[in-house]
Amino acid sequence: MAKDMTLMWGAGSPPCWRVMIALEEKNLQGYNSKQLSFEKGEHKSKDVTAINPRGQLPAFKHGNIVLNESYGICLYLEDQFKSQGTKLTPDNKAENALMLQRMFEGLTLFDALKQVLFYTRFVPENERHDSAQKRNAENLKSEVGRWESYLQGSGPYLAGKTFSLADVIVFPVIAFLFRFGLSEEHYPKLAAYHNTLKDRPSIKSTWPPNWVDTPGQPALKDL
Amino acid sequence: MAKDMTLMWGAGSPPCWRVMIALEEKNLQGYNSKQLSFEKGEHKSKDVTAINPRGQLPAFKHGNIVLNESYGICLYLEDQFKSQGTKLTPDNKAENALMLQRMFEGLTLFDALKQVLFYTRFVPENERHDSAQKRNAENLKSEVGRWESYLQGSGPYLAGKTFSLADVIVFPVIAFLFRFGLSEEHYPKLAAYHNTLKDRPSIKSTWPPNWVDTPGQPALKDL
Repeated sequence: MAKDMTLMWGAGSPPCWRVMIALEEKNLQGYNSKQLSFEKGEHKSKDVTAINPRGQLPAFKHGNIVLNESYGICLYLEDQFKSQGTKLTPDNKAENALMLQRMFEGLTLFDALKQVLFYTRFVPENERHDSAQKRNAENLKSEVGRWESYLQGSGPYLAGKTFSLADVIVFPVIAFLFRFGLSEEHYPKLAAYHNTLKDRPSIKSTWPPNWVDTPGQPALKDL
Repeated sequence: MAKDMTLMWGAGSPPCWRVMIALEEKNLQGYNSKQLSFEKGEHKSKDVTAINPRGQLPAFKHGNIVLNESYGICLYLEDQFKSQGTKLTPDNKAENALMLQRMFEGLTLFDALKQVLFYTRFVPENERHDSAQKRNAENLKSEVGRWESYLQGSGPYLAGKTFSLADVIVFPVIAFLFRFGLSEEHYPKLAAYHNTLKDRPSIKSTWPPNWVDTPGQPALKDL
């Protein structure tokens, strides 16, 4: 039980979700879980900014220790609870290096995704350009193709034979792609990866509650 | 000696520089060091893409292991050479968490910096807006102010009393700010941090060669 931990999170956010997966994998159930609504602006509330002055989710506390960066939280949990739950860092040196490579390439994938799906959220109306949206879509397509090819070369997990921090961190981004309509036909390896991992207990039990009984969106169907 | 390591790098690039600092701190001198020119497009050469298909620097090999993401390389070197050279992860749990927090917030600082300094490189002429440039500058100012306040609250290093991976990773970004004219008067704590660390052997010996005898630029002097 992890009664000395508090996590504030928003549904569907890959940075929040990866922390929830890591907590499950490390057998840290029973933490103080506070779901907040991005739509209602609750991530800007005083409860959050008292822990995370950036007004962003996740916001995480372990006792008196505050840590809000999702990559940092995952690394911290693995380090502090090495022998508890799933070991998330492969012993094999080459797999360990591949895990690190994929973890941090995951930032580029998520960034490419955000540029496409959140364009109108980030860019004021008078600064929008069709040429930029087209370039962003091409960039995301190329990036997703790169990840499809990674799983052609190895697998079944992102760093090879072992479920690792790379999966904890990048799976939510891949799930986000499919939630927004990514074609299983165009990206069969990513689809197989997604379909296998979505039944993993740590992932199933943390599946975004607002995704459960609602249809996905088609924004990426032609990618 | 690290004769089984190869690093391809470009001068002044914070992602390259942090890897060079990590190698020095871990006493991994003697690696195969290949300086390439961004200006000549050498990061897109076959030598690079054979190691890093993204055509980006750094590109790094240790024996047969390829790892190109700078955060990943730093974590890998610390993990593989734990007891060699400087210990870059504090034993103290709270300092360790603060190190991770600052390391990953460093991504936001670097991103804010790139949005300002590389605006014309990233954004085609017909898509540029004064309003975007103004917003980017305000965002960078707010971000740099945040880091100034971090050093008011603790220090002398980014994670507290111990030089750590947070410094290895974020110092090059802070040095970049001052290279581009950041005011020492406006940001005295960052200036003190910069001035102390720039004489550290690992940093002095890896200082960007193209910065040594050339003046900085004033782009950020009014920030």
